[in-house]
Amino acid sequence: MAYATWKIDTLERFCADVFAAFGFTAEESANISDVLLTADLYGIESHGMQRMVRYHKGIEKGQIHVDEKPEIVFETPISAVIDGHSAMGQLTSIFAMNKAIEKAKATGVGVVSVRESNHYGIAGYYAQMASKQGLIGFSCTNSEAIMVPTFGRKAMIGSNPIAVAVPADPYPFLFDSSTTVVTRGKLEMYNKMGKPLPQGWALDETGAPSDEAPRVLSNIVSKNGGGIMPLGGSSEVLGSHKGYGWGMVAELFSSILSLGVTSNECCTFTDKTGICHGFAALDPAAFGNPDEIKKHFSEYLEALRESPRAEGAERIYTHGEKEVLAQADRRENGVPVNDGTMIELADLCNYLNLDFAEYFPGYDLPAEFAGFSGNY
Amino acid sequence: MAYATWKIDTLERFCADVFAAFGFTAEESANISDVLLTADLYGIESHGMQRMVRYHKGIEKGQIHVDEKPEIVFETPISAVIDGHSAMGQLTSIFAMNKAIEKAKATGVGVVSVRESNHYGIAGYYAQMASKQGLIGFSCTNSEAIMVPTFGRKAMIGSNPIAVAVPADPYPFLFDSSTTVVTRGKLEMYNKMGKPLPQGWALDETGAPSDEAPRVLSNIVSKNGGGIMPLGGSSEVLGSHKGYGWGMVAELFSSILSLGVTSNECCTFTDKTGICHGFAALDPAAFGNPDEIKKHFSEYLEALRESPRAEGAERIYTHGEKEVLAQADRRENGVPVNDGTMIELADLCNYLNLDFAEYFPGYDLPAEFAGFSGNY
Repeated sequence: MAYATWKIDTLERFCADVFAAFGFTAEESANISDVLLTADLYGIESHGMQRMVRYHKGIEKGQIHVDEKPEIVFETPISAVIDGHSAMGQLTSIFAMNKAIEKAKATGVGVVSVRESNHYGIAGYYAQMASKQGLIGFSCTNSEAIMVPTFGRKAMIGSNPIAVAVPADPYPFLFDSSTTVVTRGKLEMYNKMGKPLPQGWALDETGAPSDEAPRVLSNIVSKNGGGIMPLGGSSEVLGSHKGYGWGMVAELFSSILSLGVTSNECCTFTDKTGICHGFAALDPAAFGNPDEIKKHFSEYLEALRESPRAEGAERIYTHGEKEVLAQADRRENGVPVNDGTMIELADLCNYLNLDFAEYFPGYDLPAEFAGFSGNY
Repeated sequence: MAYATWKIDTLERFCADVFAAFGFTAEESANISDVLLTADLYGIESHGMQRMVRYHKGIEKGQIHVDEKPEIVFETPISAVIDGHSAMGQLTSIFAMNKAIEKAKATGVGVVSVRESNHYGIAGYYAQMASKQGLIGFSCTNSEAIMVPTFGRKAMIGSNPIAVAVPADPYPFLFDSSTTVVTRGKLEMYNKMGKPLPQGWALDETGAPSDEAPRVLSNIVSKNGGGIMPLGGSSEVLGSHKGYGWGMVAELFSSILSLGVTSNECCTFTDKTGICHGFAALDPAAFGNPDEIKKHFSEYLEALRESPRAEGAERIYTHGEKEVLAQADRRENGVPVNDGTMIELADLCNYLNLDFAEYFPGYDLPAEFAGFSGNY
């Protein structure tokens, strides 16, 4: 897979123009772009520009409603339930996380559950909204079913990521992780490379382990059975029931508390996806001196990074460190975007009457591009 | 390993008498016994009667202080920090969880972080204290370092279990899981059986995977390096960094918010263990009608249990179901206690001047029992 590398400013301008062309305000477009491009800056390619096609198709099909706004339908001083009315997931999520932060600043804690939303991008973005303000942040979402429960053969739970962000020096702790062993994006990568899947990732339609990416992906699309294993694999020996349990925790805070659509029904509708989220913020000041707590945590993180390495290992990371390193590199050296995604962006430009060559001068689209309509 | 089976009443009477003999009040003794025997009833043998020796030795060595009481050192309407003053872990934990429940009933949520405590038994016990009252309950603890961080070779994090309990019909959801792939108890079981460890469990002193239980356990005891892998194994391919991240979340709520002793220092003192816990309770009524939420969750759990099974699989479980089944069986048919544990109980009787034969009539202790002083 070949990559073209673009300055972050170029991608920011492109994204802002795309979402403005879809009908979002300048502020809304900037917010959506920030979520997407943070993923690219963090090196989480699957959730950045590569995901544009999904938003394109979601709006085109009428699952994402550009003109809708999220609405608070239940509220207490420490909690809220929000109906997203199928508005853009990133906008509803920023609104919801700000509500959690506002409550945490007033009472010490805020927990917000959201129903009827859409894909929200990287979970960590919202958790970090809290940590940037000195609070501990949590974010999770359900999604189209792809996790097969332990001993099952039908996907019933989404990749259901959970993120936790905590203020620390020299950089914050940011743990952002799907509760499946890997995400669908990883399977798609192996499929494109024509490589067998590592053992312990995927199940075929009978519920047996499979290393065949094309078979597993085609089963997922046709809902023929099989899918991705929970973190911990498919048997209890390596803790399959644990990843399955963490997936359920994400479901609890997203679809259960909001009385929303559970993962097994998500994305089965024509006019919405039904995706649900959960957010929380917690003020360390509710437990003592926030500076002392931050210092105590930072020292432990440092001890972890400095602890003895396995033979042959170069470095022990703490969570969020890789994202800090990737961001510095990409702001300096540009963001790589793969050729498949570039074609999708060109298609998007055609759809919105934007001039692809103006944003990405010198990029040679393949001859067969005429008539391409993206894949979803 | 041979087992003797005892009625739950017998074990209750024995435990209550043991803790009374150690100097606890009748109420305290009943509470400690309830935590321990709930583990045995749930089939979590490693945390029930088998753990008595650890409490015996902890009190004998002066790490557990029988006469101390937990103290609230910081408090807000939604939170508290408790100093356990090295009192018995179960008693401090019941006190702390009751505080979280009381706050949740008043404000919707209660989060309590505890420092300077001791081993608290099964995490799920405390989470269930909340779910029995219609609340969502959380509980976690740090512990003596045994988890090796991804790319490391020194244990820096405990087995750090996290439990989540949620009201549901026909039985509550109870997810109670170490953040390591398995607990030390599992390694000890394989050691006793002389079997090689499954791939993906343990690391030797160089940080390389090892299937040698005696080597890994002896390294753990002598703090020579190595230990147990995080959930997800030792490489990022299967998600090692995810189990490591969950271990850190348990650390955050236990040792970090309370400014307590982190796992890498736990159990390195002569007069305390320093173990820390985290507890939270959340009222579903802060999100709408609790009965509707419970019904919505119960329907999803039922859909999971009824979803298509993998070929050859008998049943798909939801979390907490196995514990309900085990409890029914053990209340009816008795609780199995292995011979090694029976010897430890006899030793405990000698230490406390209790009559072993009165509690366990007909049990033949081995001839070499004279002079046995337990293992710690």
